[in-house]
Amino acid sequence: MILVFRPGCSKDEVAEAEQQLRGLGFQPHTLYGVERTVIAAIGDDRVTTKEHLETFPGVERVLPILAPYKLASKEIRPETSVFEIGGAGPGCPTVKPTKSKVPIGGKKLAVIAGPCSVEGREQILEVAAAVKDAGACALRAGAFKPRTSPYQFQGLMEEGLEYLAEARERTGLPIVTEVLTPTDVHLVAKYADCLQIGTRNMQNYLLLKACGEVKTPVLLKRGMSAKLEEYLLAAEYILTSGNPNVFLCERGIRTFEEHVRNTYALTTVPALKAKTHLPVLADPSHGTGVRAYVAPMTKASVACGADGLLLEVHPDPSKALTDGQQTISVKEFAQLMKELKPLAEAVGRTI
Amino acid sequence: MILVFRPGCSKDEVAEAEQQLRGLGFQPHTLYGVERTVIAAIGDDRVTTKEHLETFPGVERVLPILAPYKLASKEIRPETSVFEIGGAGPGCPTVKPTKSKVPIGGKKLAVIAGPCSVEGREQILEVAAAVKDAGACALRAGAFKPRTSPYQFQGLMEEGLEYLAEARERTGLPIVTEVLTPTDVHLVAKYADCLQIGTRNMQNYLLLKACGEVKTPVLLKRGMSAKLEEYLLAAEYILTSGNPNVFLCERGIRTFEEHVRNTYALTTVPALKAKTHLPVLADPSHGTGVRAYVAPMTKASVACGADGLLLEVHPDPSKALTDGQQTISVKEFAQLMKELKPLAEAVGRTI
Amino acid sequence: MILVFRPGCSKDEVAEAEQQLRGLGFQPHTLYGVERTVIAAIGDDRVTTKEHLETFPGVERVLPILAPYKLASKEIRPETSVFEIGGAGPGCPTVKPTKSKVPIGGKKLAVIAGPCSVEGREQILEVAAAVKDAGACALRAGAFKPRTSPYQFQGLMEEGLEYLAEARERTGLPIVTEVLTPTDVHLVAKYADCLQIGTRNMQNYLLLKACGEVKTPVLLKRGMSAKLEEYLLAAEYILTSGNPNVFLCERGIRTFEEHVRNTYALTTVPALKAKTHLPVLADPSHGTGVRAYVAPMTKASVACGADGLLLEVHPDPSKALTDGQQTISVKEFAQLMKELKPLAEAVGRTI
Amino acid sequence: MILVFRPGCSKDEVAEAEQQLRGLGFQPHTLYGVERTVIAAIGDDRVTTKEHLETFPGVERVLPILAPYKLASKEIRPETSVFEIGGAGPGCPTVKPTKSKVPIGGKKLAVIAGPCSVEGREQILEVAAAVKDAGACALRAGAFKPRTSPYQFQGLMEEGLEYLAEARERTGLPIVTEVLTPTDVHLVAKYADCLQIGTRNMQNYLLLKACGEVKTPVLLKRGMSAKLEEYLLAAEYILTSGNPNVFLCERGIRTFEEHVRNTYALTTVPALKAKTHLPVLADPSHGTGVRAYVAPMTKASVACGADGLLLEVHPDPSKALTDGQQTISVKEFAQLMKELKPLAEAVGRTI
Repeated sequence: MILVFRPGCSKDEVAEAEQQLRGLGFQPHTLYGVERTVIAAIGDDRVTTKEHLETFPGVERVLPILAPYKLASKEIRPETSVFEIGGAGPGCPTVKPTKSKVPIGGKKLAVIAGPCSVEGREQILEVAAAVKDAGACALRAGAFKPRTSPYQFQGLMEEGLEYLAEARERTGLPIVTEVLTPTDVHLVAKYADCLQIGTRNMQNYLLLKACGEVKTPVLLKRGMSAKLEEYLLAAEYILTSGNPNVFLCERGIRTFEEHVRNTYALTTVPALKAKTHLPVLADPSHGTGVRAYVAPMTKASVACGADGLLLEVHPDPSKALTDGQQTISVKEFAQLMKELKPLAEAVGRTI
Repeated sequence: MILVFRPGCSKDEVAEAEQQLRGLGFQPHTLYGVERTVIAAIGDDRVTTKEHLETFPGVERVLPILAPYKLASKEIRPETSVFEIGGAGPGCPTVKPTKSKVPIGGKKLAVIAGPCSVEGREQILEVAAAVKDAGACALRAGAFKPRTSPYQFQGLMEEGLEYLAEARERTGLPIVTEVLTPTDVHLVAKYADCLQIGTRNMQNYLLLKACGEVKTPVLLKRGMSAKLEEYLLAAEYILTSGNPNVFLCERGIRTFEEHVRNTYALTTVPALKAKTHLPVLADPSHGTGVRAYVAPMTKASVACGADGLLLEVHPDPSKALTDGQQTISVKEFAQLMKELKPLAEAVGRTI
Repeated sequence: MILVFRPGCSKDEVAEAEQQLRGLGFQPHTLYGVERTVIAAIGDDRVTTKEHLETFPGVERVLPILAPYKLASKEIRPETSVFEIGGAGPGCPTVKPTKSKVPIGGKKLAVIAGPCSVEGREQILEVAAAVKDAGACALRAGAFKPRTSPYQFQGLMEEGLEYLAEARERTGLPIVTEVLTPTDVHLVAKYADCLQIGTRNMQNYLLLKACGEVKTPVLLKRGMSAKLEEYLLAAEYILTSGNPNVFLCERGIRTFEEHVRNTYALTTVPALKAKTHLPVLADPSHGTGVRAYVAPMTKASVACGADGLLLEVHPDPSKALTDGQQTISVKEFAQLMKELKPLAEAVGRTI
Repeated sequence: MILVFRPGCSKDEVAEAEQQLRGLGFQPHTLYGVERTVIAAIGDDRVTTKEHLETFPGVERVLPILAPYKLASKEIRPETSVFEIGGAGPGCPTVKPTKSKVPIGGKKLAVIAGPCSVEGREQILEVAAAVKDAGACALRAGAFKPRTSPYQFQGLMEEGLEYLAEARERTGLPIVTEVLTPTDVHLVAKYADCLQIGTRNMQNYLLLKACGEVKTPVLLKRGMSAKLEEYLLAAEYILTSGNPNVFLCERGIRTFEEHVRNTYALTTVPALKAKTHLPVLADPSHGTGVRAYVAPMTKASVACGADGLLLEVHPDPSKALTDGQQTISVKEFAQLMKELKPLAEAVGRTI
């Protein structure tokens, strides 16, 4: 940590800060400049916080040297982590293992597709077969839906999970689905091959911990106003709770732009890949919120190095109960998958 | 709802939309302009969503006429709701009623003060006595703490609730404390006079519903990137679940500003009071994140019409385990309360 | 325009609004719903503003139907405009025409590269030759520099323009350079093949008009906090002043993100291409502000359909007087151009 | 400056950085921690930029110690600067001196009021007399109008300045009016007692310099997406050009909020007053953009310590050519001035 003192701070204030820093395990080096006194405190920044040190008398500002996360950091592991979703591993409570295991983080892009919500048995079986045919590697759909308004469709809940399990049975595709609250983790993990934590729950710390205590892989979406450091600290909650199989997903952030539902902050992909070994996906459906922009921004996502995609696909988007405005049709998805092939190859990936 | 069609849309597309709108209970009025065709659909906007109608073929944009919330709306009740915290009412599971009941939403400003976290028995008893002496009407402190990093102090949990109950016993101040997850609602409501839902949980819909199913009043803080409509829809979740005692609190939003922890969006106070009958508080501690700005922004909060304040106060902020950089001392709080008096009177309130 | 009235508005207020709307040339259609009265005013939205109509007594909200820009709109011209930079056309005051003309908006991507600032004769000649060799189609560098601090390097001014003209003479590359103020337009247009209007000047309306009065093509960069509508209205200023040769460029916006200099809002590319016929470039150097992210985000820019690129390239970025942290080396640029080839082909373009 | 090196940086990179820092006049102190090497470079941070040092090989991040502005800094002058507008001083080219001089920055709040635009002679004389009666100390109105759309009213220009001069003649109120471009500075300064630089021109550096070269006081409004440091650097441009009479004004920033025209970031007032000696005003008209919120937010502005106010006032806001939706009537202004009195007193000011 670097502590910058106010002009005119007293010697006692500096001495007091030096002592407290030593108490926290830091080695303080005090430097007297013409305009400011500075203490460079060498040690593990994670034992305290910038905010706490800023309460020391005489201190104007504190500048951390180290990132506050550890297990998520690339310094721990320089290569991208690769792990599988699908198949029941030891400790994984999935009842019916999928036929195929799908690697996340490898050379082959992980394309996870499906409707925003499970709306019924027919709908999910139809779309599962279609996305499988078009080349998706996993099926995603929501059974528990977080909705902005209490008057909107809230999801089919466990009934939806059952339909998803049937879709897996038929297609062999692993299932990715959202879990909303800690007490549901075991229920959802019983059906799903991968637990999704949605944008509104990125800082639901009890849910993060609960997902850390199972072995099912976790897709942790970025909070819509999360800074990268906060995002990686959220991942750190799952990692420190014991589950190493976490992957990330940029899904757009909240800004002043109003011609899109979210601002798709795609630089997050190379930025995360520079800071963490966790695989990084991209979600152009939520990232844009507008169907017509999904195809070009999917291509951009692949081009900038995403390890996979999350795409909303529906047999008839104009009939979708949720998110229809950003959902592409099964046919558009199949076309897009074809168009992605040369792009993936151009950046050294397969699809 | 107003549906604006793309230039060159077909008659069939317009006819199809008219039919679907009738099916949803709207009365469609179609207007043919030179550059655009428009359907003004008269009816209850809440039966569908803007996003759903935007998936209709030929539709370019949809403009809602009505706000999507109802029970929270000022149209239901033009005057500010007033209700009490403290005292065990019918159905309120608080074990030990406070001696005094405190009205929220009335002429007298509700000043709720206390440390960010319950750190121990001595600390909370000391600060409770001090804020009571200085004129606070309720004590707020966190026993369950949502923290950005898993390496930070996570709160004393039930032990903290017990200390809070003891502080109430001694001072008569009602207790406001945060609840993080649905399964904790009954535990926290057993001790607390008012449940706080924090900024990160504003869209934790299961938590909102769980708080709606008890009778304990709920302090719902604004999400750090919530639009007003989303905020009022979050309140609507609690109201539709059966709990009418909800009050709101502006606590700063996330923007590009970096000289403050949050941008304190104080216009939210008159804006909310124009749209809802729910009482509106303001939290200048989180709103600024900087101790030196708390006093001036507290005054601003009172001046613009807040129904009360949420203030972080600690015996020694430089020793606080959490949020010390934005916490004022007991002495500063007492001084501030004196300075607020003429301001409150100037806007027709008491304190 | 759609006018939504407050609940309980009077008949007189509605009648008064109808009359005023007729006076502005609209045809008002008044619709009485259960909760709201609405006037759908059919006519040319551009004769007034949403804000003005919102001052009518009784009016709660106004919703525009039409976009406020015309000449920039895709409705005027459905295909992307193509025009050339370089070569002196009639009315174009460039003294020495470039040898080659470069189309903007066509199938071939326009790659405009060069250092942030002209730092000296050697530097600009070196980089011009290098970017030409690597495949750039035009040279960009600043002679007049807008700098955040008065203590920073402000550019070589006319001396810089002379070096740029010499670089053009030697390489045949057209020159793109920034103009800061209306009185400099003729001076800069004497040397340059294309005038750049920078992000801080996007709403400098007198500069826009002055650039509209010459024939030299204009590269109008997006303001760092401009909404799309404002951006297209800025282009409209140039177009209505008589200069049809305007092209646009996404360069990142200001948001809460702090791990990048700007949030590169790449969805702007397909969004602009859906709304306007003007060509749309992308600037991943400013868009990210971080050298390591320039290559992946350049690829993303091509993949999502940009008509060209603006890239900061310097012989030795660590010695650059300005923007070194986001500038790639000549060698990195050459490598990137190679890697872009298959990507461009994958989206039906050449480079 | 603090330079943090990447893990695994080489000794040569550190040595090279030390040498370059010495060349820039810094004294480098190198500290070897377990996870990072850090150089604390003691000296004047303003001789270089954070961004430049970040281009040094091996450097991961650079953290500045000192603020980049000097003359605007409170360290130069701990008390708020007080200066007068009105009256022709030496070097001030105003043709007709106002009868009264008005101090900016003193105990008495400077209330500057008037319509957004000068619309005609009658209108401006009427409103001038009215705001004078109600207690305003200066008249503000725009003759040169920066407008988002080229189809909107652009101001009466020099004719407007003449009406303003007549209004001053009659009321004795000093005139504040906007200047849009460097070549207009002398013209506007001939009529006006104070030059306003608007939000869109905060980083129009040539305009800042031109306003620095006259002696007329300058009201520099905050850019709608300006960070505080950028804002103070813009003021620094004027100050270093020779004009010490600069005052600032918070007017709202651009954020995701859509229920207001701008987010009124009022904490900027105490924050600026902590960092600079320049007087700080507040503009609740633009700050909110909604007439109904102007009165409460004006009160908040006074309560948090603003040195003055900028208020849009019109005889009949529903007829205003510009900004009617955020303009209060003459009558509302008079009422507000009365209500402000006890608030001003409560914070130790007069009005």
